[in-house]
Amino acid sequence: MSDPMEAYRIDAEPYYRPVGDEIELFEAAYAARMPMMLKGPTGCGKSRFVEHMAWRLRRPLVTVACNEDMTAADLVGRFLLDAEGTRWQDGPLTLAARHGAICYLDEVVEARQDTTVVIHPLTDSRRVLPLEKKGELLRAHPDFVLVISYNPGYQTLLKDLKQSTKQRFGALDFGYPEHAVEVEIVVHETGVTTAVADKLVAIAERARNLKGHGLEEGISTRMLVHAGKLIAQGVEPRAACRVALVRPITDDADMRDALDAAVATYF
Amino acid sequence: MSDPMEAYRIDAEPYYRPVGDEIELFEAAYAARMPMMLKGPTGCGKSRFVEHMAWRLRRPLVTVACNEDMTAADLVGRFLLDAEGTRWQDGPLTLAARHGAICYLDEVVEARQDTTVVIHPLTDSRRVLPLEKKGELLRAHPDFVLVISYNPGYQTLLKDLKQSTKQRFGALDFGYPEHAVEVEIVVHETGVTTAVADKLVAIAERARNLKGHGLEEGISTRMLVHAGKLIAQGVEPRAACRVALVRPITDDADMRDALDAAVATYF
Amino acid sequence: MSDPMEAYRIDAEPYYRPVGDEIELFEAAYAARMPMMLKGPTGCGKSRFVEHMAWRLRRPLVTVACNEDMTAADLVGRFLLDAEGTRWQDGPLTLAARHGAICYLDEVVEARQDTTVVIHPLTDSRRVLPLEKKGELLRAHPDFVLVISYNPGYQTLLKDLKQSTKQRFGALDFGYPEHAVEVEIVVHETGVTTAVADKLVAIAERARNLKGHGLEEGISTRMLVHAGKLIAQGVEPRAACRVALVRPITDDADMRDALDAAVATYF
Amino acid sequence: MSDPMEAYRIDAEPYYRPVGDEIELFEAAYAARMPMMLKGPTGCGKSRFVEHMAWRLRRPLVTVACNEDMTAADLVGRFLLDAEGTRWQDGPLTLAARHGAICYLDEVVEARQDTTVVIHPLTDSRRVLPLEKKGELLRAHPDFVLVISYNPGYQTLLKDLKQSTKQRFGALDFGYPEHAVEVEIVVHETGVTTAVADKLVAIAERARNLKGHGLEEGISTRMLVHAGKLIAQGVEPRAACRVALVRPITDDADMRDALDAAVATYF
Amino acid sequence: MSDPMEAYRIDAEPYYRPVGDEIELFEAAYAARMPMMLKGPTGCGKSRFVEHMAWRLRRPLVTVACNEDMTAADLVGRFLLDAEGTRWQDGPLTLAARHGAICYLDEVVEARQDTTVVIHPLTDSRRVLPLEKKGELLRAHPDFVLVISYNPGYQTLLKDLKQSTKQRFGALDFGYPEHAVEVEIVVHETGVTTAVADKLVAIAERARNLKGHGLEEGISTRMLVHAGKLIAQGVEPRAACRVALVRPITDDADMRDALDAAVATYF
Amino acid sequence: MSDPMEAYRIDAEPYYRPVGDEIELFEAAYAARMPMMLKGPTGCGKSRFVEHMAWRLRRPLVTVACNEDMTAADLVGRFLLDAEGTRWQDGPLTLAARHGAICYLDEVVEARQDTTVVIHPLTDSRRVLPLEKKGELLRAHPDFVLVISYNPGYQTLLKDLKQSTKQRFGALDFGYPEHAVEVEIVVHETGVTTAVADKLVAIAERARNLKGHGLEEGISTRMLVHAGKLIAQGVEPRAACRVALVRPITDDADMRDALDAAVATYF
Repeated sequence: MSDPMEAYRIDAEPYYRPVGDEIELFEAAYAARMPMMLKGPTGCGKSRFVEHMAWRLRRPLVTVACNEDMTAADLVGRFLLDAEGTRWQDGPLTLAARHGAICYLDEVVEARQDTTVVIHPLTDSRRVLPLEKKGELLRAHPDFVLVISYNPGYQTLLKDLKQSTKQRFGALDFGYPEHAVEVEIVVHETGVTTAVADKLVAIAERARNLKGHGLEEGISTRMLVHAGKLIAQGVEPRAACRVALVRPITDDADMRDALDAAVATYF
Repeated sequence: MSDPMEAYRIDAEPYYRPVGDEIELFEAAYAARMPMMLKGPTGCGKSRFVEHMAWRLRRPLVTVACNEDMTAADLVGRFLLDAEGTRWQDGPLTLAARHGAICYLDEVVEARQDTTVVIHPLTDSRRVLPLEKKGELLRAHPDFVLVISYNPGYQTLLKDLKQSTKQRFGALDFGYPEHAVEVEIVVHETGVTTAVADKLVAIAERARNLKGHGLEEGISTRMLVHAGKLIAQGVEPRAACRVALVRPITDDADMRDALDAAVATYF
Repeated sequence: MSDPMEAYRIDAEPYYRPVGDEIELFEAAYAARMPMMLKGPTGCGKSRFVEHMAWRLRRPLVTVACNEDMTAADLVGRFLLDAEGTRWQDGPLTLAARHGAICYLDEVVEARQDTTVVIHPLTDSRRVLPLEKKGELLRAHPDFVLVISYNPGYQTLLKDLKQSTKQRFGALDFGYPEHAVEVEIVVHETGVTTAVADKLVAIAERARNLKGHGLEEGISTRMLVHAGKLIAQGVEPRAACRVALVRPITDDADMRDALDAAVATYF
Repeated sequence: MSDPMEAYRIDAEPYYRPVGDEIELFEAAYAARMPMMLKGPTGCGKSRFVEHMAWRLRRPLVTVACNEDMTAADLVGRFLLDAEGTRWQDGPLTLAARHGAICYLDEVVEARQDTTVVIHPLTDSRRVLPLEKKGELLRAHPDFVLVISYNPGYQTLLKDLKQSTKQRFGALDFGYPEHAVEVEIVVHETGVTTAVADKLVAIAERARNLKGHGLEEGISTRMLVHAGKLIAQGVEPRAACRVALVRPITDDADMRDALDAAVATYF
Repeated sequence: MSDPMEAYRIDAEPYYRPVGDEIELFEAAYAARMPMMLKGPTGCGKSRFVEHMAWRLRRPLVTVACNEDMTAADLVGRFLLDAEGTRWQDGPLTLAARHGAICYLDEVVEARQDTTVVIHPLTDSRRVLPLEKKGELLRAHPDFVLVISYNPGYQTLLKDLKQSTKQRFGALDFGYPEHAVEVEIVVHETGVTTAVADKLVAIAERARNLKGHGLEEGISTRMLVHAGKLIAQGVEPRAACRVALVRPITDDADMRDALDAAVATYF
Repeated sequence: MSDPMEAYRIDAEPYYRPVGDEIELFEAAYAARMPMMLKGPTGCGKSRFVEHMAWRLRRPLVTVACNEDMTAADLVGRFLLDAEGTRWQDGPLTLAARHGAICYLDEVVEARQDTTVVIHPLTDSRRVLPLEKKGELLRAHPDFVLVISYNPGYQTLLKDLKQSTKQRFGALDFGYPEHAVEVEIVVHETGVTTAVADKLVAIAERARNLKGHGLEEGISTRMLVHAGKLIAQGVEPRAACRVALVRPITDDADMRDALDAAVATYF
């Protein structure tokens, strides 16, 4: 209990290959303590970017995977009954606000409105968090800032952030890296040769062109890293691509065959 | 526990730039203890106005961010299980009514219609709040008054205040300030030059004309303050507008390009 | 704890201006202990009438603002755990039934069926309330009677009282008072002159004709009292009507202008 | 705790005017311990009949007003947290089965289909009630029997008893009594003259013909008793009919006028 | 606590009249510990058959009437807090699995998916039940087997067993017995003469032909037993058929008259 | 409490007949700690494969049968109220992550999308599980890996894994084995002759062709093992097929007759 943030500090630099001015913009936003929203498809590096920035800014990182069953109390905290009586337990948002961490709400669009609305007083000039059950009005630590991720492809009529939430955040767009950058990432993360990584990225680029034409989502950088790791384990490249790239993203027999054929033109 | 309202008092004057007779009307309504409804789009200054009035009237301010998962008990209070048994915990509405604060229900239209019914006996001549679970009929403190905010652009068939709720309130309309006033606000809040603020406001005015033509909501004063703060941090103005004005309000590629182009005509 | 009903007694006569034979009919119904249903639009005086009758009949009045989150236990009562063990806490319905109060369920149509069904055994010849958790079958005090309010304009396919509930009640219709009576009420409640009150009522009558033609509900007597109080505070009459009569009932720009124009023909 | 059934015993004979062989059939069914279903519209005397039979058979009567929020635990029982730990509290069904009462589930069709399933093992040859939470297999007392009421006019596609429930019961049809019998009942219950009661019944018969032609349900015997009681209090008959017969069953202006006119042809 | 299964043992042979090879097939399935599903309409003898087989195989029988409010904990068990601390309470499924009973889930299609999914690991080769709250992985007693009942006429799009559940069970079809067998059953269960039973069965056969032509379900064997018992009590046969056969299965006036007429051709 | 994983270890080799390179691919994926998704119809051997791999890799196996009522807390854990206060109870996912087991989420598509989000931080490079209620950031044991099963035939618009979940997994396709392999399995698991097993597999193959033409799902290998076991018990083959193959998968009379006829061509 000496340093409640110890588990949340990031000691080693997380590998992140910048693709534009995102590091500088995040630093400026953090200097102004502006809450940030990271927009982009799954598996393109949003979570890794936040880890990297937390390391770079030397702030602890409290990550919350949002979901529909999460209540406001899961974010804010609750009283627990133990042998000596009741004890208040800070939730992750309170913990971050109290101790000056970056709080990262991953896939915030999954959360119910009551969990998103609790962040409002922390994201305007008040920078407070009312702990109503505890009768405390917590003023956020000067180093605290809130970051959320948001996949525009997922938002629906039923699940979207309210404008009154969105307008509290600055926003950065993320996408898949350019060819050469993505090859560099795959080589760095898996240890395959540049030649193999080059083929994997080429396969992914073909599949990304099929998004909206039978594929719901393209092959992400994360999936290329999966394939590379299997190949590095000695798995035959076609089998590795089957397991790591094709089978996870489609259940349709025709699409599966088309993707397998695309793989076969490279390996 | 000496002054349960201490955290809710506002010691320093919150900056608020009046745009009409709203301060005088609110003061007269408060003198008659008439509940007030502030109508207007997100980020136009309703919350800041309430803070300012609470400071001006020297009353504590208890703010509740309403949401559709909020139950009547979240407003009124509940029994908590404690080492010594159960203990009653006033909710924010009860706290304000008991101690003579202004209770501000932000985005009240998000609350379920049935939850808003609990405010009825506090908003007519009875000025009482029955704490049914506690067996107490709380008579409101003479200084207590209720204020709600309401965004007409959000109300839908499913989410609207009931007439029997609306008719209990006086109402003030809020909108985005006039050009010169908004420039003054941006300069005051961010420290950018009048020239820069003038451009930012002009960009916002263009975007506000697109509301209903592809944009759900216009660029708010709050967002201009965000952009101004980034520019004041040294961020290149186009990048600042991209992060603070454009990316947060649209996921549509065409709209994004149109707004980026609008930015480019100024910076 | 000497007189558990003390907070519920009404010492001073609440102002009520009768519009017909409603006082005599309610007295006869009470003499027969017939449960009563008060039907009418919002803000026309139903709640005030119940207060007046409770004062006139010298019975305590227990009012419950019904809502969808209210459970049967909120009406009936529950066990609370405290330092000495468990203690039963009567809910408002039980309290009224036990001690001979008038129990007034305001906007009963908002309540879920489980809260409305618990009143059945209290509203037929049995006049009992089963406290199942306590193992008590409470026989109602001879002075107890139940009153509910009901706004016919609100009931929908989803929210309506069941016939088996309605048939347990006698019913009284309420509406807006006639011109002269309403002027008398506004003068009495606000202190404005008869001339001003006359104009306010005339404005309300115009707006009531628009009900169903763009207005969901007319301007109620309560709203006229609001406007009169602002005028009595020194607010310019047009501004008072804008705040108290027009802005609360419409978000539509055309309707708002039409009502503002109607105000301008009087003030 | 000496006799847990004491409050449920019926000492004085409840007035019931038989309209056919229903008393004899119920006695035979009870002798065979056959569960019974009473079918008919609201307010026609089903509940009074059960009270009468409980008195006649000298069995305690446990009545449950069913509703759609009622869970299986509300019928069967639950553990309560107590100063000494948890304590089992029999629900009304368990109480009746354990001590040999008649258990009357009023308006059973309001309960969710799945809640009614708990009565199945009590209504076949097993005559047991598994208290799963308590780990007890309760064998019903030999005197126990289950009675349910059922309003065929209410059942909808969403709300109906399952065939597997219905087939466990014998059934008796109830309707409004014949003219002379209903007059006799009104006279007995209110003390009005036969001439007045005769007119009240005639008005009810007219309204019953409108059922399905603008009226959801006819005027019940219970409502005639209400009107009679008001008249016995000295209320003018037309006003009594307005309050007790017309206003409770319709919100429609035309229907209200038609019924008022029907009243005017008698009084 | 000496024999926790004592209440669940069946000492006397429950009357069951086999209609085919169902006893032999069930015995073979039990020998292989294959979970069984009994399919058929309500009141045709499925529950009686399970009781008979439990008696024949000398295994205790734990029956659970499934319903939508039943949670997984209701089947599996829970911790109870009592004076000496916490105590684990086996639910009926755990009780049966631990002590080698037959567990019979009656009308399993009513249960929510979480209660049906908990049976999966007990119905494949693993034969385990994870008691997650207790941290125990219970291996089923070698004598344990699971039986479920299922009415094909009830399953809907919303309520059906998942294929992955169905495929874990062998299945036996049940229907109404042939004429002579059903007569034999009615005589045995009620004591009426063969002549009377013959007429009752003939009436039932007529009604079964109307299934799908205005009748949702036919007259079951159970209902014939009801009618027979009333006749044996001395009730006039036509009245007995009215109460036990006709009124329970239809609310439609024409169908009721048709069935009454069919009764009149026999009695 | 010495080895919390003891009950989850698999001592004896579970019979599994490989049909391709699935064992090698799973081993390579496990070496890279890549989360795996097993795709295929019910009853084709996915669960058995995971048991076999857990035995082969000498890791404990924690299996969770997913369902739509499962909350995040059911996977992660919760505080339990205990005699000494609250005590944290690891859920199955936490247990596996903490102690280095394989966690197998069976039929993960049944869980709500939002519940599956909790697995995200365990399935990327972070390999952590935030226990928000406990205030612990659990780092997964180096031996931990997550496996999910997925039946593509079940996924619907309402029930499907999100792309952001799918892309975290490598995937292996499973189907019914080829004829000779399936015969080998049936012989091994039941002890019937190859001739009988050959006929059973032939019947299954006919039924599988009817999938989508009146059958929701084909006859699985598991069902063939059921039929074989009944035959090995001495049940006549046609009766065994009726009970184990036909009745469980269809309620339709025509389909039942067609399948019975197919059985009759072999036995």
